[in-house]
Amino acid sequence: MERLGVYAVNGKMKAIVKHQRGYGAEMQMVDIPYIEEHEVLIKVKATSICGTDVHIYSWDEWSESRVNPPYIFGHEFAGEVVETGSKVTNVKVGDFVSAETHLVCYECPQCLSGQYHICKNTKIIGVDTHGCFAEYVALPAVNLWKNPSDMPFDVASVQEPMGNAVHTVLAGDVAGKTVAVIGCGPIGIMAVGVARAAGAAQVIALDLNDYRLNLAKEMGATAVVNSKEQNPLEVIHQLTDGNGVDVVCEMSGHPVAMDQGFKMVTNGGRVSILSLPVRPVSIDITNDVVFKGITVQGITGRKMYETWQQVSSLLKSGQVDVTPLITHHFPLEDFAKGFDLMIEGKCGKVVLHP
Amino acid sequence: MERLGVYAVNGKMKAIVKHQRGYGAEMQMVDIPYIEEHEVLIKVKATSICGTDVHIYSWDEWSESRVNPPYIFGHEFAGEVVETGSKVTNVKVGDFVSAETHLVCYECPQCLSGQYHICKNTKIIGVDTHGCFAEYVALPAVNLWKNPSDMPFDVASVQEPMGNAVHTVLAGDVAGKTVAVIGCGPIGIMAVGVARAAGAAQVIALDLNDYRLNLAKEMGATAVVNSKEQNPLEVIHQLTDGNGVDVVCEMSGHPVAMDQGFKMVTNGGRVSILSLPVRPVSIDITNDVVFKGITVQGITGRKMYETWQQVSSLLKSGQVDVTPLITHHFPLEDFAKGFDLMIEGKCGKVVLHP
Amino acid sequence: MERLGVYAVNGKMKAIVKHQRGYGAEMQMVDIPYIEEHEVLIKVKATSICGTDVHIYSWDEWSESRVNPPYIFGHEFAGEVVETGSKVTNVKVGDFVSAETHLVCYECPQCLSGQYHICKNTKIIGVDTHGCFAEYVALPAVNLWKNPSDMPFDVASVQEPMGNAVHTVLAGDVAGKTVAVIGCGPIGIMAVGVARAAGAAQVIALDLNDYRLNLAKEMGATAVVNSKEQNPLEVIHQLTDGNGVDVVCEMSGHPVAMDQGFKMVTNGGRVSILSLPVRPVSIDITNDVVFKGITVQGITGRKMYETWQQVSSLLKSGQVDVTPLITHHFPLEDFAKGFDLMIEGKCGKVVLHP
Amino acid sequence: MERLGVYAVNGKMKAIVKHQRGYGAEMQMVDIPYIEEHEVLIKVKATSICGTDVHIYSWDEWSESRVNPPYIFGHEFAGEVVETGSKVTNVKVGDFVSAETHLVCYECPQCLSGQYHICKNTKIIGVDTHGCFAEYVALPAVNLWKNPSDMPFDVASVQEPMGNAVHTVLAGDVAGKTVAVIGCGPIGIMAVGVARAAGAAQVIALDLNDYRLNLAKEMGATAVVNSKEQNPLEVIHQLTDGNGVDVVCEMSGHPVAMDQGFKMVTNGGRVSILSLPVRPVSIDITNDVVFKGITVQGITGRKMYETWQQVSSLLKSGQVDVTPLITHHFPLEDFAKGFDLMIEGKCGKVVLHP
Repeated sequence: MERLGVYAVNGKMKAIVKHQRGYGAEMQMVDIPYIEEHEVLIKVKATSICGTDVHIYSWDEWSESRVNPPYIFGHEFAGEVVETGSKVTNVKVGDFVSAETHLVCYECPQCLSGQYHICKNTKIIGVDTHGCFAEYVALPAVNLWKNPSDMPFDVASVQEPMGNAVHTVLAGDVAGKTVAVIGCGPIGIMAVGVARAAGAAQVIALDLNDYRLNLAKEMGATAVVNSKEQNPLEVIHQLTDGNGVDVVCEMSGHPVAMDQGFKMVTNGGRVSILSLPVRPVSIDITNDVVFKGITVQGITGRKMYETWQQVSSLLKSGQVDVTPLITHHFPLEDFAKGFDLMIEGKCGKVVLHP
Repeated sequence: MERLGVYAVNGKMKAIVKHQRGYGAEMQMVDIPYIEEHEVLIKVKATSICGTDVHIYSWDEWSESRVNPPYIFGHEFAGEVVETGSKVTNVKVGDFVSAETHLVCYECPQCLSGQYHICKNTKIIGVDTHGCFAEYVALPAVNLWKNPSDMPFDVASVQEPMGNAVHTVLAGDVAGKTVAVIGCGPIGIMAVGVARAAGAAQVIALDLNDYRLNLAKEMGATAVVNSKEQNPLEVIHQLTDGNGVDVVCEMSGHPVAMDQGFKMVTNGGRVSILSLPVRPVSIDITNDVVFKGITVQGITGRKMYETWQQVSSLLKSGQVDVTPLITHHFPLEDFAKGFDLMIEGKCGKVVLHP
Repeated sequence: MERLGVYAVNGKMKAIVKHQRGYGAEMQMVDIPYIEEHEVLIKVKATSICGTDVHIYSWDEWSESRVNPPYIFGHEFAGEVVETGSKVTNVKVGDFVSAETHLVCYECPQCLSGQYHICKNTKIIGVDTHGCFAEYVALPAVNLWKNPSDMPFDVASVQEPMGNAVHTVLAGDVAGKTVAVIGCGPIGIMAVGVARAAGAAQVIALDLNDYRLNLAKEMGATAVVNSKEQNPLEVIHQLTDGNGVDVVCEMSGHPVAMDQGFKMVTNGGRVSILSLPVRPVSIDITNDVVFKGITVQGITGRKMYETWQQVSSLLKSGQVDVTPLITHHFPLEDFAKGFDLMIEGKCGKVVLHP
Repeated sequence: MERLGVYAVNGKMKAIVKHQRGYGAEMQMVDIPYIEEHEVLIKVKATSICGTDVHIYSWDEWSESRVNPPYIFGHEFAGEVVETGSKVTNVKVGDFVSAETHLVCYECPQCLSGQYHICKNTKIIGVDTHGCFAEYVALPAVNLWKNPSDMPFDVASVQEPMGNAVHTVLAGDVAGKTVAVIGCGPIGIMAVGVARAAGAAQVIALDLNDYRLNLAKEMGATAVVNSKEQNPLEVIHQLTDGNGVDVVCEMSGHPVAMDQGFKMVTNGGRVSILSLPVRPVSIDITNDVVFKGITVQGITGRKMYETWQQVSSLLKSGQVDVTPLITHHFPLEDFAKGFDLMIEGKCGKVVLHP
């Protein structure tokens, strides 16, 4: 929040402001932000809505405890550099960029060993600082990722959540393996595409929402399971000749689904958890973890910037095509329509255009 | 149990037989077993009592559901080959040997990828078949591990549980790291020695039993914590400048201790679980696993036979000295004294001599 | 050779016999082999020619020093089990199978740690024992790999060399990376397909033979380089914005090409070598290995049987389609036509049908 | 060299200046350097001589092509912070520090994936910029490593080369393994200590210099081989029951010794090369790399800053004691004595005290 009050004198911009400690947000005209010597001012061309934004918009318990309105939220975007601070060397005016949303300390033991994504002092753009649901955003140059000039802005905008999917799926081997993706929000759906692109022999997508299971199918799922209608463990048993899956990407955060994930993974398998269950989860450590000799990984953020390199090259090469997943576009002003769709679950990614 | 009734005509031997579905066991004279063409007959020189043997002796819920008296139990031993089947090529009469206790199928996907220790069809010597609490034991040649001729029999006998410790500790890097060992039964105490030998900068041992914490200290723990008397998380905080430990070896099986393990590990750290909690454990997945980006490993058995190679060379080279841990010796006949000590927790390893 | 002279009384079969210490081979009628209790008799349905077979056929220096005519050569095949020894449990009559060609000792330190493919006492089917260029072949059951009943025999036959390609490519990460395959013999061409299936962003194939470069293109190469016509290092420089490639799969065995491989790999990259240069190769260790901090891997055989699992599932799932590579089919009798094509390099895989 | 000419007005200091393009160096009084906003001025308390310094002093081919006299050389040191630039947050006046000698770009693909030690644009302190053979040195804050207040300055000074040893030895597993260290310069001798501390069962040190082999023995070598007097391959054969060693740390740079390293490593083993042979080396790729399935690693610098964390904690915990290796101390003025000893090889580490 350290730049609150230092908005630029040179103009006004539209921004979606989380204006109050309660439901909703509002479009406001605010000052275009100043930049400091290591910062960059970016004209936002496309900005997509994340589940975290929906939490803030809906004002859940987590938001109550973490964010401080009024401020501009949003953290997924693609834009064009329009001004650079005096010490900036890695980008220049005219470059197309997106941004890593973790602002890290570079001084804790984790940062010093190159594990920036689990920095103990992480701040998050659009959560702890002003975000990108606006015409302009000012960011530290070190957080910017240069996009190819021919990458569409909406695709470039969803690289950040795709980074979560890539970080999760590629946290171990998948070529020739059977992968289950539990929870088909947009990141889960992207995980399906990434797993398939990385050579998974089977990619089984599980959710309760048929709309999203259809998107998962479009992104390459070899089987989809609506867990309301079918017993996931029985389906997996059949699809894997009784062996279970090699890899579980847990993206639902639901305790029942997570428990099923631990039960469907084969001996020696991997369970990579990106989801954030709201309460502690009961796990059968003895039978589902120890006797099976599995590996469980907590996954957060994106490796800085190894994951961005992977995302960028998977997109550029056409190995992953995220366009089927980008289902809705609105002008920035119509943000409420986007949030409504996200709350209903009747969408893939929703992109706003300032 | 497939060899019940095929005891040899050539003599009788003393054996500790789990004689009934209830507490205790009794010494009996039984036939020396025949061997088949791929088997080996071994004269047992030393055999040590495992926690699993104590469960069977005490007849807990797990034993009730798994073992079928009457049969000879016990699975940790060292002995001398006295007879070999016609197809045996890897050992010969006069060799000193111990044995891997997992009898695996060699045909399931896990076995076919070399992960025998998590074979889906594992049987365990002394649990599912006759064991080594006897003067002789007949075993498949493929399960034997040759011991150096100058390795004392009691040391050779505890290689099997030391394998669990080695498998757990060396499942990731420890050199220069801070390792917590939660639960100081004999395997936990050996884990302390292994961690120290493998270059751990700090090895912090936690338990409720001062006798065993003292043994942990003798094996090289740089700090010991009696969790009844001190708050483990506070002590760890102080010992690590607030960073937490890099590696947790969970060997207690207690849900509170396990939860503390997840809380004391630093971001990006490793929790390797060898223990078998009797009920599902509640874990704060969001804060203790995902946001911290940790890795959790279920550890079972010993890698066949990579772990045995490690154990053997750590012992031969003197990098680990397990003799402080071998606290009691009894003739086979006095097995009840050994079990009483194990139940009380007033011992390290107890070795029986047939 | 231990079964020479124990051919079955129950009939004769056609076989391609390496009949003399010199060029060529001849079709002969020989006894169908007996099987022992751990062996299986297989009716060969398709058998493909490997580069090693060409060496034996052409009788080069290596053959002179290694093989002992007269014997039946050949080691790549697919067939149907027609008889099983009394101790065989993993396959049954009617199963479709291929075979791992390494016969290993199961007793050396490498075997005991599950690294069978680098067993110190390896014998090779069709080199050190009778092979599969025949109507029937007798093999140890433990070496058999079961094929799906709907996998075409020619595809199943090339799983063995595809295993070399899979072992090489998947010896490290490739998803989102740039991979160069140097040397486009059939294994190199399969490596192209595997790399692409496993998510490589760019796969650059290099060879001197346009016929094979075209096959590489069909298998998914994003760029092909004829090193006679273009400077490989310049092309790579352009294709990678000056960064070099992340992964080199060296399958040419040529010292100049290998040196170029070390020069085209980026800092921190991987060079995986499957080829067998006939003489020592001069390598700029300081500039191309140490300062660049690269990893070099020697690759031999296939992981037993992890690689077979990968191969099988990549084929079954359609992630890799090897049919463009299987360019020629002949009856077993016309083997000479196949060898001629292989010597000319005017083919992909050549399959013989007994 | 960008700070040449910006020496501080506030005083003069003693410095060892490489004054000419030829043999030797001279002590001069020079201005104490200014610092910029991200830099720190450090009072040097101890500075040790590296082999690279000897090359510069002796003016070999490499120096001729790389360094630009006149300038202050030296890069290993420990000192106390006496002044910090306005933007410095990670250290403060009074802190004890050493420094990573690689000045990296933070913008190339390697830096962006956290592999700073193989940055494509690396500059080296004391080679490409002014160094620490002086009373004061000015350095970027980001390169500083804080030392514990009770670590002796001479020990702290040798952390940088010990980082090379740690990076090499711990680039793979060593616990319970057999490690050969080829070349017992100071880094090789430290590698012996690190390998032993990390649980190696056998550490075999090889060199031609008995003085240094004795130091290796003091640091924990279980066997030493003077390759002038014994056939290294025969000795290794005996010490390993014919298996060869699991890990080779190549620190000699000599082509014959390096070739022996490739021959003494067992199938599946690791050869980690830190040395910089002056010419390309001929390697039997087929027999020593491919058929053996080994991994070869080029090792350069230290992982920034994971290796520093390891070094620091191995020293603090007493797991490694480098004091036997620090054989000589001189006042800065007597630098020539130190260089003479280094050239003769009659020393471990030589420390200069300004």
